[in-house]
Amino acid sequence: MVNGLPGNMSSEVLNVVLQRELPVVPYSLTAENQKEFSYHSKVSNQPITLLRPSQRASEIEKILQDYPRLIAVDYTHPDAVNSNALFYQKYGIPFVMGTTGGDREQLIQSTVQSNVYAVIAPNMGKQIVALQTMLNKMAQSFPGVFQNYRLQVTESHQQTKADTSGTAKEMIQSFVKMGAHFEYDKDLRMIRNPVEQQQELSIPPEYINGHAFHTYRLTSPDKSVQIAFQHNVLGRNIYAQGTVDAVVFLWNKIQQKASQKLYNMMDVLTEQISNN
Amino acid sequence: MVNGLPGNMSSEVLNVVLQRELPVVPYSLTAENQKEFSYHSKVSNQPITLLRPSQRASEIEKILQDYPRLIAVDYTHPDAVNSNALFYQKYGIPFVMGTTGGDREQLIQSTVQSNVYAVIAPNMGKQIVALQTMLNKMAQSFPGVFQNYRLQVTESHQQTKADTSGTAKEMIQSFVKMGAHFEYDKDLRMIRNPVEQQQELSIPPEYINGHAFHTYRLTSPDKSVQIAFQHNVLGRNIYAQGTVDAVVFLWNKIQQKASQKLYNMMDVLTEQISNN
Repeated sequence: MVNGLPGNMSSEVLNVVLQRELPVVPYSLTAENQKEFSYHSKVSNQPITLLRPSQRASEIEKILQDYPRLIAVDYTHPDAVNSNALFYQKYGIPFVMGTTGGDREQLIQSTVQSNVYAVIAPNMGKQIVALQTMLNKMAQSFPGVFQNYRLQVTESHQQTKADTSGTAKEMIQSFVKMGAHFEYDKDLRMIRNPVEQQQELSIPPEYINGHAFHTYRLTSPDKSVQIAFQHNVLGRNIYAQGTVDAVVFLWNKIQQKASQKLYNMMDVLTEQISNN
Repeated sequence: MVNGLPGNMSSEVLNVVLQRELPVVPYSLTAENQKEFSYHSKVSNQPITLLRPSQRASEIEKILQDYPRLIAVDYTHPDAVNSNALFYQKYGIPFVMGTTGGDREQLIQSTVQSNVYAVIAPNMGKQIVALQTMLNKMAQSFPGVFQNYRLQVTESHQQTKADTSGTAKEMIQSFVKMGAHFEYDKDLRMIRNPVEQQQELSIPPEYINGHAFHTYRLTSPDKSVQIAFQHNVLGRNIYAQGTVDAVVFLWNKIQQKASQKLYNMMDVLTEQISNN
């Protein structure tokens, strides 16, 4: 059950679910002010009925009778994170929470108390999460390795994103732990201008409103050494793929009746070792 | 005692030793066919006497009387690796072996048997070693994370280097373990042409004969995700700095009468945690 339709992220998740030929529940939680009553994916003819918060309580029991083993995927709105989680918990619905924001502490707490299986992760891009984890570990293992190196960061996102990339902030923190020198006002370049994005970064026009480009460049004091890391994402497919991996992961945990019930993306990543 | 003068790498190490104001032993093992009898660093006026293999046995005891606590740094020739190591071992001289090649297994074995303190590492660039270690660990932790991604590698070195970069090979191995698809004949580009190096990579003319540029680029099957790693080194300073760090590390181990006697660059890196 992919909730948040017809939103961009949940549409992409629905596409991946259909492409992987996994069963889809033809209902989706949506916003109260949503004008449409159903959604049609590009991949499938089956319509998905959109359920507003005012309707969902009356519908869910029938849905659960028809699809007793459903797993909810949530890409709704930061404002809905906590109430949606409480809804899943109340009806014992396992869920993958990809929506960011909300009261995260309360989200974790209510999930633990409810004893419902869940994957909660603010970033579902497995490859990016692996990179973050790796740099975090590197900072722990070699805290002085980039002593006196200068770090410079360029990040580009859609024009509507006002703040600095959260991923960039976390990566910068790791490099600073490794001794790199970094000043936000001098060493960070945020690109939000579509013209620069097309000309400098060669971002295709269709992705100007949905991309996440990051470059981290470390330079030695004498400038003889440059070490750079780059992660460039166009669109949302990487996150949708990771989300569906999380759903499959959760499904397996439920079948195994695993004692651990709350997971994050690191758990999904680590699990794939034993399956390879 | 910096052995291998007047070679490029040992000259650079000598410069770093002098810049850091560490004491220098004014002798250096050199090749039998060396024409010069002494060497003058740019940094210091003190001449370094060059000792040929035929002379060294008769000289070393006097040198050890004058400098009983000397540590040898070896940047000589692959052909000399094993015989030089045996020489250090015979006279109980702790050594940092930066020379590559030779019979590595025999090198390790004789060192262990001799019970002499030593750092043996084919790559003394701490930052590059840290990067290699990190990717190696990432491959162990997340073996499938780049499943179906395509890896493309470009590496540029001086024209005289015929084979593929050993560092690149090791990094490629890590990415392949993470599931990336890589074919040496299609996905590796080796640049040895000085014109391309200057024009494409903007390598300054003075470094055309001494640089190591590496770019690894991973692309997702749908091309929406690109993850890249780059380590570009001009000249030899990074290796010389790491070598002198290894000497200081070994000096400390000797003072501490450490029970472990044989170390590698990872040990040097890890040690720096506790000192930061």
